[in-house]
Amino acid sequence: MKGTPRRKNETHQVRGEAFTQIVLEVTLAQLAEVGYERLSIPAVAAIAGVNKTSIYRRWPGKADLVRDSLGAAMRHADQPADTGDLRGDLVGLAQSVAAFTRSPAGTSIIRILLAEGGNPTVSTLAQSAYGETSRHGPLEFIERAGARACLRDGIDPSLVLFTIAGAIVHRVFIERRVATQDFIEEVVDLVLLGAQAQARR
Amino acid sequence: MKGTPRRKNETHQVRGEAFTQIVLEVTLAQLAEVGYERLSIPAVAAIAGVNKTSIYRRWPGKADLVRDSLGAAMRHADQPADTGDLRGDLVGLAQSVAAFTRSPAGTSIIRILLAEGGNPTVSTLAQSAYGETSRHGPLEFIERAGARACLRDGIDPSLVLFTIAGAIVHRVFIERRVATQDFIEEVVDLVLLGAQAQARR
Repeated sequence: MKGTPRRKNETHQVRGEAFTQIVLEVTLAQLAEVGYERLSIPAVAAIAGVNKTSIYRRWPGKADLVRDSLGAAMRHADQPADTGDLRGDLVGLAQSVAAFTRSPAGTSIIRILLAEGGNPTVSTLAQSAYGETSRHGPLEFIERAGARACLRDGIDPSLVLFTIAGAIVHRVFIERRVATQDFIEEVVDLVLLGAQAQARR
Repeated sequence: MKGTPRRKNETHQVRGEAFTQIVLEVTLAQLAEVGYERLSIPAVAAIAGVNKTSIYRRWPGKADLVRDSLGAAMRHADQPADTGDLRGDLVGLAQSVAAFTRSPAGTSIIRILLAEGGNPTVSTLAQSAYGETSRHGPLEFIERAGARACLRDGIDPSLVLFTIAGAIVHRVFIERRVATQDFIEEVVDLVLLGAQAQARR
């Protein structure tokens, strides 16, 4: 607890963006550590060094707080670069998925999505945070890259993205291996060539 | 607790394969329900209706029991048909992955793998159960289908399998959508075409 009182005094004054940010970060960390059921707003307030009343003023209930926390973490994670080329953009997107799986926020969200299947509240919240980002972020990204024009007719761009993301999630969380740059490029080439090739049947 | 005494009397006599099977099934269900830390051999014995001493005689510790339980569930899940054709075999494999993600055993194993990352014992056990199956089962399968000869030089057959499996895991556990037959065939075609196409670069 070294430094706690001083930190508390400092952060007690926190307002606006800084307040939102620390509360959402602490919520996400607590969610990963203790799970949704045992998450408590007073505990979040104590760790963040803010008044619990300020939290309740902004987020009336735990579900509101968790929804915003997951949403913020997802938005933060998903910023692939615009390389002006579809393969380059997909490699960038795959790198951001890989970075996300290594980050505390990403680890928490993916574990919550996978582990708390039995809890409809939290899985709906996590799914909505992930779904919102993956529906808007990557689809915007695909329009930008003009991907539809580069892919075979009938290929759903989101299938391309989710297959690449799935390969990375499988590698990191199931095989427990590192998603190296070589691995990322192999997966992108495999899926992109498949999305461009003409069917043989 | 209706019927418990009768069930207990019946299963108390269970020996050999039937004993192994019920103990491993109950262990897996308990693992999914309460997690590794709270799993107890006496509780497993009570639910299975067997003597805890018989369990300890066969599995000296919790880790031994969990390892065998995960291993048995994985072996059980992974029996794709031999269709005599690579695409057909891959569709069969993808169907068995999809069926696995819908089964209680598969749900438990994947959740454990993803959720208990913080517990090195259980994640090592789950990883070893999954890894053993995926290294032997699918690789044998690939040799059988003569897949290496059908794929582009330099493509690792396990990349093909794990990308298909990853797309299904993403679909079921992250998107929370059903892995329909149409979806399975789209993923297999996407990845297989990618593994057969000649690179353009």
